[in-house]
Amino acid sequence: MKTDLDSIMQSNNIDALLITGSAQHNPAMVYMTGGGHMTGDLIKKRGETAVVFCNPMEREEAAKSGLPTKSLADYKFQDLLKAAEGDYVKALAARYSRMLTELGVTSGRVALYGKIEAGLSYAVFSALQQAMPGLTLVGEVGGSVILQAMMTKDAPEIERIRQMGRITTGVVGQVADFLTSQHVREGVLVKSDGQPLTIGEVKARINLWLAERGAENPEGTIFAIGRDAGIPHSTGTPSDLLRLGQTIVFDIFPCEAGGGYYYDFTRTWCLGYAPDPVLALYQDVRAVYDQVISELEVNTPFNHYQKRTCQLFEAQGHPTIQSNPQTQDGYVHSLGHGLGLQVHERPASGATAAADDLLAPGVVMTIEPGLYYPDKGMGVRLEDSLCVHSDGRFEVLAPYPLDLILPVKA
Amino acid sequence: MKTDLDSIMQSNNIDALLITGSAQHNPAMVYMTGGGHMTGDLIKKRGETAVVFCNPMEREEAAKSGLPTKSLADYKFQDLLKAAEGDYVKALAARYSRMLTELGVTSGRVALYGKIEAGLSYAVFSALQQAMPGLTLVGEVGGSVILQAMMTKDAPEIERIRQMGRITTGVVGQVADFLTSQHVREGVLVKSDGQPLTIGEVKARINLWLAERGAENPEGTIFAIGRDAGIPHSTGTPSDLLRLGQTIVFDIFPCEAGGGYYYDFTRTWCLGYAPDPVLALYQDVRAVYDQVISELEVNTPFNHYQKRTCQLFEAQGHPTIQSNPQTQDGYVHSLGHGLGLQVHERPASGATAAADDLLAPGVVMTIEPGLYYPDKGMGVRLEDSLCVHSDGRFEVLAPYPLDLILPVKA
Repeated sequence: MKTDLDSIMQSNNIDALLITGSAQHNPAMVYMTGGGHMTGDLIKKRGETAVVFCNPMEREEAAKSGLPTKSLADYKFQDLLKAAEGDYVKALAARYSRMLTELGVTSGRVALYGKIEAGLSYAVFSALQQAMPGLTLVGEVGGSVILQAMMTKDAPEIERIRQMGRITTGVVGQVADFLTSQHVREGVLVKSDGQPLTIGEVKARINLWLAERGAENPEGTIFAIGRDAGIPHSTGTPSDLLRLGQTIVFDIFPCEAGGGYYYDFTRTWCLGYAPDPVLALYQDVRAVYDQVISELEVNTPFNHYQKRTCQLFEAQGHPTIQSNPQTQDGYVHSLGHGLGLQVHERPASGATAAADDLLAPGVVMTIEPGLYYPDKGMGVRLEDSLCVHSDGRFEVLAPYPLDLILPVKA
Repeated sequence: MKTDLDSIMQSNNIDALLITGSAQHNPAMVYMTGGGHMTGDLIKKRGETAVVFCNPMEREEAAKSGLPTKSLADYKFQDLLKAAEGDYVKALAARYSRMLTELGVTSGRVALYGKIEAGLSYAVFSALQQAMPGLTLVGEVGGSVILQAMMTKDAPEIERIRQMGRITTGVVGQVADFLTSQHVREGVLVKSDGQPLTIGEVKARINLWLAERGAENPEGTIFAIGRDAGIPHSTGTPSDLLRLGQTIVFDIFPCEAGGGYYYDFTRTWCLGYAPDPVLALYQDVRAVYDQVISELEVNTPFNHYQKRTCQLFEAQGHPTIQSNPQTQDGYVHSLGHGLGLQVHERPASGATAAADDLLAPGVVMTIEPGLYYPDKGMGVRLEDSLCVHSDGRFEVLAPYPLDLILPVKA
């Protein structure tokens, strides 16, 4: 939780955080500043309030963070550039060096954050490391202080994710109503003008309905039918028609405008009817979904339920990545992931999960078992986002029916 | 231009490009792959076709790029992790080392790209550099091969930006129609229910209308009135009312869905009437806008027109950042910037412009002079996006009236 930052820094032996980049669609910066139309730097020394460094043009935006701000203009970049004989990277490193020194960060371990160009990070922070040998710049991966803090959410964060869940399921309901109100001709949905409806048109409406509710959809939507549904991350072919009796995997993961909190949700639908093999596949996934949700216990390693899911699917006779890491049939991904300012964050449930990737109170995570048979032209996934309450209760943040079949007009 | 990549690599002494991260909202990866719902790596050796490395789950998405793909699963990350004694960073570096070696990139200079976490870049590429001392990893800044290629656009790219321009001005027209169709009470716009209209409501409609046209708005919109309009990058206060006779700076910069090509556009509006000082400020900006546009010549350094703009504004009696780099009154920013897969790219017009930041054929850039007086509660900016044709002609990609006053109902 954000209030734990200082203690997490302490236990990870980190003396300061240096975050750079935009305050939009940049999780670490959004986490610390609350977002806003601003690009700059943020330095937090352990035990002290974070300071935002920004362009004077963006000073009022930066001030909305409630944090103290400093103007980057005060560091006279043109002079630094001259002193560095035109070397832009060295000049940027010199500016960081002044900023850090001013805040008293001249020794110890400084962890780096911010979604920026890889070349810029590598060059500037290598130069900074050279310019300040007393510091150790740390590119934490996995065990990152910020990701660790983000792993448990406080009540206002959970409320924001819940609100995104309401928006998400509201739009899912609109999509269901829209599909069931179409006509059927020769086994596909057709619009009132008699033209067949396409997946591209459905996706356009999803974006529209999300925007109407004030959400953004930067990562797109998976709306995949038939064989595409059997490939977990195929997003669907825009020209595909809405054919009856085929699995549609509808995975939707929008966020607050400006790149804030996400929700993540999947249903599998079959229009009109489900052929027996599809129904059987759905029932297998549904049984595992129900079973795993019923077994969830607070403070258990998330990876425990990944193993359990593999065990359950294998007992049903499906291949899984546990029995064959290369399989592209059966259960081929991990059970879920933490959810917050990123669609995928800690805790992890897969093979890379750390020892402290627990279902601790405050965790918000997805549970999303699925089975895929691309060569049989079908796939089923069911996904909800849950939060873990301090009393050990698990709550689906935005409940929505799990039904497979969407009725169509006779 | 993309077709110049090999020759730009040659002249920048770069033997290979290594791009990482998502193929959405990640300009270098979108540039090379065309986008898609995929996260992975791309390596391009000079003179050879780029190769995409992706998760097997995303193989069909990656294949849409038309580039050869390889599965990251073939590199057996769990084995690499074991060999690195659980060190995630070292294991990632070892995987890069295998990928590069496989493509015959074992010596020379490799430039790094991709919008990912700064800590990850710094750690993994420092480890890769250590693991492959025969290579030189290069974090190019400013003079980057990709940014240099991106600086001039081919015909399909210009057409995509022009299409985003049509969408943008279409929405701007909807906003103008919406505002002029409201009623006025006590000097502010009110809706049919008698409640005052707020900037927050106008922004919600902008997002909705952009989504209706299939665009995304990941960086938000500036819609700022009065004092906010006098602060160039204030995005506007959602609860502010639409008051007659005050400057509204409306700066809109949406992109194609999935993080593709952007457009960038600003108008300054005054509802009902313009007080004399506002009208005078507008006329000064308009005169400089017209003058600068009339003087544009192909292959001239963009920075030449920044100096010229300062000269013109100073002749009108306004302070500029040329006479006082710290000023927050008058002309406080640069004249424009290249536009493409990023809102701001090369060529640059400001103090950091490089010698080759020219208005070459194929360049798409903004021209956006403005004057700001926050303490007088006003600001004016006019911005269009232009492309440079090979015959030396400059074309505003999406023309729209520059008028200041939006009439309101009597």
